[in-house]
Amino acid sequence: MSVYLDNSATAPMSPAAVNALCETARNVFGNPSSLHGLGLKAEHVLNDSRAAVARLIGACESSVDKEIIFTSGGTEANNLAVLGAAHAARRRGSRIVTTMIEHSSVLESCRQLESEGFDVVYLKPDSKGHVSKQDLISTIDSDTILVSVMYVNNELGTILPVESIKSIIKAKNSPALFHVDAVQALGKIPVKVQKLGCDLLSVSAHKIHGSKGCGALYIRKGVHIKPLFYGGEQEKKIRPGTEALPLIASFAAAAGECTDISAKAKKTAELKALLLSEISDLDDVTVNSPDDGSPYIVNISTSHINSETMIHYLESEDIYISSGSACAKGKRSHVLLAAGLSVQQIDTALRISFSDNSTAQEVIAFSQALHKGVNALVRAY
Amino acid sequence: MSVYLDNSATAPMSPAAVNALCETARNVFGNPSSLHGLGLKAEHVLNDSRAAVARLIGACESSVDKEIIFTSGGTEANNLAVLGAAHAARRRGSRIVTTMIEHSSVLESCRQLESEGFDVVYLKPDSKGHVSKQDLISTIDSDTILVSVMYVNNELGTILPVESIKSIIKAKNSPALFHVDAVQALGKIPVKVQKLGCDLLSVSAHKIHGSKGCGALYIRKGVHIKPLFYGGEQEKKIRPGTEALPLIASFAAAAGECTDISAKAKKTAELKALLLSEISDLDDVTVNSPDDGSPYIVNISTSHINSETMIHYLESEDIYISSGSACAKGKRSHVLLAAGLSVQQIDTALRISFSDNSTAQEVIAFSQALHKGVNALVRAY
Repeated sequence: MSVYLDNSATAPMSPAAVNALCETARNVFGNPSSLHGLGLKAEHVLNDSRAAVARLIGACESSVDKEIIFTSGGTEANNLAVLGAAHAARRRGSRIVTTMIEHSSVLESCRQLESEGFDVVYLKPDSKGHVSKQDLISTIDSDTILVSVMYVNNELGTILPVESIKSIIKAKNSPALFHVDAVQALGKIPVKVQKLGCDLLSVSAHKIHGSKGCGALYIRKGVHIKPLFYGGEQEKKIRPGTEALPLIASFAAAAGECTDISAKAKKTAELKALLLSEISDLDDVTVNSPDDGSPYIVNISTSHINSETMIHYLESEDIYISSGSACAKGKRSHVLLAAGLSVQQIDTALRISFSDNSTAQEVIAFSQALHKGVNALVRAY
Repeated sequence: MSVYLDNSATAPMSPAAVNALCETARNVFGNPSSLHGLGLKAEHVLNDSRAAVARLIGACESSVDKEIIFTSGGTEANNLAVLGAAHAARRRGSRIVTTMIEHSSVLESCRQLESEGFDVVYLKPDSKGHVSKQDLISTIDSDTILVSVMYVNNELGTILPVESIKSIIKAKNSPALFHVDAVQALGKIPVKVQKLGCDLLSVSAHKIHGSKGCGALYIRKGVHIKPLFYGGEQEKKIRPGTEALPLIASFAAAAGECTDISAKAKKTAELKALLLSEISDLDDVTVNSPDDGSPYIVNISTSHINSETMIHYLESEDIYISSGSACAKGKRSHVLLAAGLSVQQIDTALRISFSDNSTAQEVIAFSQALHKGVNALVRAY
């Protein structure tokens, strides 16, 4: 049995998403910007898909207002939000507030903004990835033009206090736009833009069983940001270029399957509990994830076996997990560093990430293989 | 019989490209950046696809050197080339040389650069879209950091003198990088980066029967440009974000079918000749395209019938063409304006664009419908 527990890196496409991808590729070949009927047919698919993604996050479903802008993925959506918001607000202030544990697409765009003269404050989390509300309150000020905080951390599963941020911005009389990177939250906890009061929110298709290469940025109606690149009239000129119709249709299909989110999360919480119980006898294994995090992500450290060594051992047992963010490709985790973990814990960290298709059988297979691995590899020292 | 002659807007996907898209979506779900075997399998598909696109344009096929950077399409590739080259060369000079008839993704990024203090020279074409070599010689100088010229104009089919540019840059002792927008040339005339001597070259999948949402930028080994956005380690950090694997595999499949390019162009030249012969009796119809252009694009003006009216008339006969660039979505063509055509000619322009699957039967059906349309609509005045 092949056991794939690396769903936070990328989740297998669902049959409905594959079907939408292939059907659109075969049957809807017009350019949505073309004036004739084939273009119109493509535009309808585009509008319907936009409405489906909007519906999932509680945004406006209108094809006129277009609160959903399709991008090539989460990385582009995050950059468009962060760079776009900062560049549009340059005259209103210079401070950007974010955290040390954001995805590299937010952190690297913030570093770019620092090189352009912006003042970026990176809030430090506690050892479980929690960022304190008090730190947000004392940092966000009237010079702050952007607050960018992720909903769920991609390595630890920690849920960040995004629900409090809008009221802090308001209380501090800050002109800041509020961006939420919801890539690891979508489909796993209810994500509702109205409840969050956010101006910008990033999502990605391939984390919810859609295809790689497609994401979206929610931009609240009336909010203006600068594009990352220029060209035609597509996506309100915020994101020009012929739309990736098959991918977008597949994203919509995957979004349509994000139902019963709370029930699925409850089921997954049972898997997380099972996993922690199954490995609790392993003395040197520490759990890095918080108890109150997303159940879909469990980060542990074996203390003695290098992450890559263990990943390859597990692979030989047909079990697939990761050491952390795939985007970092083996570099030492900035998230675990920020959480203050020891080098030993960081270098032996493993991330097990579930999807709503994960099973208890898979958890047990993983746990058995981990036990075997710990025994085999520790002895090999 | 449905007749689609709007292939320059977007070409229907080939069965092989659809197959590659669907097979990859179904079977290769790993993240190419993941350290385990499923990631490796995905990385192999990525490398093979990169080699296939490289082969088509005569670039280096090595997965180490990575002269091919995948993007979300031609628009992003053009922006990455133009903005990326200019931002990287800011200290070497300030002049950018381009033409008035580039795609909007080049022109709009140049306008952005003007707002940042760059000095952009837009060369004016003649009435057929030809840009003179002499103008290039007198404009490119030692302060020029970028020359960006398209290979084939997307509205007129005019072939621009890109083969002469490298030697002009050299003769003028210019530090300029040389970018070719080859979106409408790829698969239609042999595009070889070594022969062109270009540093950067943009291509798009959906113009050669691949999927929308995928393109690539050739970046000659050793050439450094700035990214448009930031994040993970993918694509040499020039273009971060999880790669759109199904699209990329489909692009490679489409690239693999770009064989017998000269023979296909010869066949298409016969279609162009047939079309011009079939409509030569229509007194008020003028041909805007040059005789020596790409045979895949024929631009005409009916003189009396507004483009959109005629497009909708033809659509009622199940025939699909355009008025010009889909990206402009009905705005008056900047290409025909630059070529100095009259407003009457511009507002009645039609673009017929072939693919290598177009047939004489389709040309005749179009011509008959155009005759009917001219008669019906002129009388309606």
